[in-house]
Amino acid sequence: MSGWRRAVCLLSGGLDSSVSLACAREDGFQCYALTVDYGQRHKLELEAARRVAEALGAKKHVIVQTDLRVFGGSALTAGLEVPKHRDEAEIGSGIPVTYVPARNTIFLAYALAWAEVLESSDIFIGVNAIDYSGYPDCRPEYLEAFERLANLATRAGVERGVKFRIHAPLLRLSKAEIIGLGRRLGVDFRLTHSCYDPDPHGRACGACDACLLRRKGFAEAGLEDPIEYAK
Amino acid sequence: MSGWRRAVCLLSGGLDSSVSLACAREDGFQCYALTVDYGQRHKLELEAARRVAEALGAKKHVIVQTDLRVFGGSALTAGLEVPKHRDEAEIGSGIPVTYVPARNTIFLAYALAWAEVLESSDIFIGVNAIDYSGYPDCRPEYLEAFERLANLATRAGVERGVKFRIHAPLLRLSKAEIIGLGRRLGVDFRLTHSCYDPDPHGRACGACDACLLRRKGFAEAGLEDPIEYAK
Repeated sequence: MSGWRRAVCLLSGGLDSSVSLACAREDGFQCYALTVDYGQRHKLELEAARRVAEALGAKKHVIVQTDLRVFGGSALTAGLEVPKHRDEAEIGSGIPVTYVPARNTIFLAYALAWAEVLESSDIFIGVNAIDYSGYPDCRPEYLEAFERLANLATRAGVERGVKFRIHAPLLRLSKAEIIGLGRRLGVDFRLTHSCYDPDPHGRACGACDACLLRRKGFAEAGLEDPIEYAK
Repeated sequence: MSGWRRAVCLLSGGLDSSVSLACAREDGFQCYALTVDYGQRHKLELEAARRVAEALGAKKHVIVQTDLRVFGGSALTAGLEVPKHRDEAEIGSGIPVTYVPARNTIFLAYALAWAEVLESSDIFIGVNAIDYSGYPDCRPEYLEAFERLANLATRAGVERGVKFRIHAPLLRLSKAEIIGLGRRLGVDFRLTHSCYDPDPHGRACGACDACLLRRKGFAEAGLEDPIEYAK
């Protein structure tokens, strides 16, 4: 049945999830892009996600509304100050304040819901265990545990023995490698948005962790970042 | 640290989740009641959840807004007709149309997010493997898989070795036993709402699967159901 070649692709509108979506397309999947609007500061991501989904030929793009601000606990949702650093060497080890509790678990749960409705067994997520080593839910063992859960959680898994697969094509790539891969797969980086704290004109701040990692990645890849920075 | 005696208690406003909350209180937890408003038909559940959380002395009650209707796939969210039966013997085996894809996975993911913010390692959920045997995400092996995921997904699990526990105190109880337990723990059943398809006056229909199971449970427990039925 053709339905089994559909994939649900989590898409924030950032660089990584856009390249992950391009990988799904490259692997021959019909892509259903899923964006979770969880009350994050960087609403520009949602617009970026729309543009990227269209540019990469997603069959459908759904934005799920929810609100993680009710729980607090992260600089991205709770009104804490997003840390600024002079360069990427200052980014600490350990789990950063921009970590949103259980975010990937919530994202994957939504992806699983849609996958089940679509009769898809494939979910793509742009997590990365290198640059985001501080995030517990970006590690391979976490993704394997979610796969196991998915098989037990669903009608498809229980009644038809469908094996869900969580694809994380960027898991072991550096930011520079992700950028190189995205370029080969035709991702238009101008459409993507990475900054945690853009200025009122929508320009990337250039100084948050996300901006620093992105700039460093482009520099290491020997490519120019086509987006505009406030400074 | 006193924080570790907090529990996040999933509360729909139905009979089972209300008794589950009462169990958490009985076990000595300070209870943080969590209701997910996912665009379900039975909005009266939300009001019931508020009343039950207050009556059972929850420290806090949060309602998270989201919308599972964007995915479709269930009679409870997609505008399909809720099936009516003459009596509970007609309720089929297999997974019913009222099954909402990945619902418990989404609920538990939210509970995990809040638990992490609260520095709690305990989550209560009112699932039941007997009356809801058709739901894949109401089985013990599913809950164990979620526990394993939670330990890998969180800062608490990774940095401090916290072991999350998903408490499902009703897992192996019949509806009659759940009702008897709720009565001993002081649950006011008048405050609870079970019906999938209430009439315009908010009265339970008396004929959907949820009503049939509830009525049968009260009959078997030898107790009178204090709520009003349309018929």
